[in-house]
Amino acid sequence: MNFQAPDSLSEQIAQHLGKKIICGALKPKERIQELKIAGELDVSRGSVREALLILERRHLINIYPRRGAVVSGLSAELISSLYDMYINLLIMLGNKLADKWQGHDLKPMLEQLRVVNRMAETADAPLAEFIDAGFELMSKAHQVVENPYLEETLANFRPAIARTYYLSLSRRRDEKLQTVRFYNDLVVSVQSRESVKINRVIKAYGDHQRALVLGVLQELTDAAAMLR
Amino acid sequence: MNFQAPDSLSEQIAQHLGKKIICGALKPKERIQELKIAGELDVSRGSVREALLILERRHLINIYPRRGAVVSGLSAELISSLYDMYINLLIMLGNKLADKWQGHDLKPMLEQLRVVNRMAETADAPLAEFIDAGFELMSKAHQVVENPYLEETLANFRPAIARTYYLSLSRRRDEKLQTVRFYNDLVVSVQSRESVKINRVIKAYGDHQRALVLGVLQELTDAAAMLR
Repeated sequence: MNFQAPDSLSEQIAQHLGKKIICGALKPKERIQELKIAGELDVSRGSVREALLILERRHLINIYPRRGAVVSGLSAELISSLYDMYINLLIMLGNKLADKWQGHDLKPMLEQLRVVNRMAETADAPLAEFIDAGFELMSKAHQVVENPYLEETLANFRPAIARTYYLSLSRRRDEKLQTVRFYNDLVVSVQSRESVKINRVIKAYGDHQRALVLGVLQELTDAAAMLR
Repeated sequence: MNFQAPDSLSEQIAQHLGKKIICGALKPKERIQELKIAGELDVSRGSVREALLILERRHLINIYPRRGAVVSGLSAELISSLYDMYINLLIMLGNKLADKWQGHDLKPMLEQLRVVNRMAETADAPLAEFIDAGFELMSKAHQVVENPYLEETLANFRPAIARTYYLSLSRRRDEKLQTVRFYNDLVVSVQSRESVKINRVIKAYGDHQRALVLGVLQELTDAAAMLR
């Protein structure tokens, strides 16, 4: 690993730790020790503290006064709350986009949709790249919607949602097709400016994805119990 | 000023600077210099950097790589986007609360409503306290709704919204009554679980408040132009 650009060191540390949390290398509720990480990455403790604040903003860790940082939990309640929030924000984004797009505004989104569709057909495309490509598709909307607060809030939820996608899609490969169908349905309903359909498509997929994540989580809990 | 508790020093610095931004002592687009603040408050530069990350999360400043921190702008576009976001989140909160409340769940909210009503009748109650009391009323909902992501997201928008309230209410004292009427209407519609009314009340007040802020902003711009 290579931490070069001095002014974004804390961002780089946050990215590094964030990836570990998203793919599950750092487990829910695991403690994150500032000093240990500073030593491992050969960076200052101050830079690690800044990185932890960035990760807290991205909902991947919690920082407790006097107790330090802990990887966010993955309880059924938290996942359910996270999806409630994310569904609400996506519905807002989808409707603003449907209201505002003109002329060729949707072109970047349609191009990214082709990329995602191709990826879904390639069985061995890396999962992390597929998940990222889907987020990229969504983020194309911000160029049209132009609400920096919505953009930032959604960007801050992206890692926590990616973490749940990683959990479910790595165990349910066939779900990639479901995900791609959602993206296609959503883009079509935005093109035709059908608010009711946008809301229904996002809600249905969000609920489906949440149920999937909760199912996988239950399996893992059961498996862990059998090993005990 | 007194910065004692060592583990929340950055939070205290953030609070201190945040108040200055909210009441307008630090102006939109004004640069915030790490070294200068560290010197003024006699704290480490690292603590100031952490405080700036907290303020960025709360939408009060922007941090640009290599250029440092700048107080968030107050353009018409930004205010409009901010209110779009806040109205959306409050509608989500109001509806979740209407769905979930049982028995005496609304009691803390009704008690806080009495506090706010009394404050509005007292002509000389400090504005900052009145604004805070209103936010406290809203935040009582979280005990019932129990969505930590929604709670955190709303909490992060509170300072930026407080800043716009401060701007408008300090110049339109009579608007306090309008604000109090909104709180009362909202609580009544939550009590009767009327989703349509909740949406309408929040949207109407949000739009009214946004127009007020934009009007005050225009006046200030005109006044500044006349002085030039």
